[in-house]
Amino acid sequence: MTPPEQPERGSDRRHREIREAAIGIFLASGYDGATMEDIAVRAGVSKQTVYKHFTDKQNLFADIVLSTTDDMDALVCLIADRLSNTSDPAKDLEHLAETFLNALMEPRVLRLRRLVISSADRFPEIATAWYGQGFERALGVLSRSFQALAQRQLLAFKDPAMAAEHFVGMLFWIPVNKAMFTGDDDYAATHDLAPVARSAARAFMNAYGVGRKDRRGRTMTEQ
Amino acid sequence: MTPPEQPERGSDRRHREIREAAIGIFLASGYDGATMEDIAVRAGVSKQTVYKHFTDKQNLFADIVLSTTDDMDALVCLIADRLSNTSDPAKDLEHLAETFLNALMEPRVLRLRRLVISSADRFPEIATAWYGQGFERALGVLSRSFQALAQRQLLAFKDPAMAAEHFVGMLFWIPVNKAMFTGDDDYAATHDLAPVARSAARAFMNAYGVGRKDRRGRTMTEQ
Repeated sequence: MTPPEQPERGSDRRHREIREAAIGIFLASGYDGATMEDIAVRAGVSKQTVYKHFTDKQNLFADIVLSTTDDMDALVCLIADRLSNTSDPAKDLEHLAETFLNALMEPRVLRLRRLVISSADRFPEIATAWYGQGFERALGVLSRSFQALAQRQLLAFKDPAMAAEHFVGMLFWIPVNKAMFTGDDDYAATHDLAPVARSAARAFMNAYGVGRKDRRGRTMTEQ
Repeated sequence: MTPPEQPERGSDRRHREIREAAIGIFLASGYDGATMEDIAVRAGVSKQTVYKHFTDKQNLFADIVLSTTDDMDALVCLIADRLSNTSDPAKDLEHLAETFLNALMEPRVLRLRRLVISSADRFPEIATAWYGQGFERALGVLSRSFQALAQRQLLAFKDPAMAAEHFVGMLFWIPVNKAMFTGDDDYAATHDLAPVARSAARAFMNAYGVGRKDRRGRTMTEQ
């Protein structure tokens, strides 16, 4: 983490520490298994302090779930900006794909994802907000990058939003499901994600890139 | 359901009825909330009968989860076989995409999916088996269909398995996640899935189809 520009106030620090402790407890014990008591102990504060900062368990859960979308958003904006200005979309799309995939396959992100899905029928507003602030915001950023490349005649499509959806679908569907359904949240540590990222980026360029031909003048279909 | 060719034995019928009852109870109450007592009541049998047929709750859960993959497998084989023999892959791929998407977006399938993901860290062997018998088997069937089309020079790729992964990713990632994260298992009833299926099939043909050009001789990139 980069150091804050101004010294952090004691109250802000405690807020952050309780949040960190809560993420650990919720991910380890699930929503029902997590108690405000355990979170207080882990954060090294009293239970009253936890309630003072976060009202109740559901509020604390909502807060930690939504706070994680900011990290993802910052990352997506950074790499999408680079993509918008690229002179080599094929290469930079591969880079974006790999960075994005590694971020989503972080054990903590996968565990949080399972937790949010598990509780989506009980707390649909939290899961919906997570989807909106996380996935849909990222899709919007990506879509605008693709639109910028289309204006520079490096990509071609009718609907940039649909193209963005296809890109993330090719990239994420298989590895994320494998992690979800094997319960293996350390999937990225034991599997090479680079070929998945590369092949998704290449298939996307084949579908939406402009004028890429192979040496014999055929449309390229390599992966 | 089609009627069985031979009269069903009483024991088989009870087995099936307990399984049906268990699916309803597990989907409504989750793994922890479901009791063998509730399942027995719903099936109209004694608790002893449930135990006689399925040993214990975890075994019954494993049985119902895995039994659902057979339906999906039969569907996939049917439509993939039609695709392998098509003379119009673009059209038949759209048909396959729509049928496949509608099947996966059935409320019961979505609820089961959430249940399996929720319990994947506790019962990884059940979730892994579901993924293997469901998703991976379907991917294998699809991959062989694509390979058949490549041999007839209607598709081109280096790796049919990767092409199949891209197809299902473009098709499923967005609608399945929307349903998972909004908790809206009736998503298909209120959203038109046909455009999603159509655009995934078209993007796939643009990426992997052979020789499709638009009227000006450019590689087609429509959605």
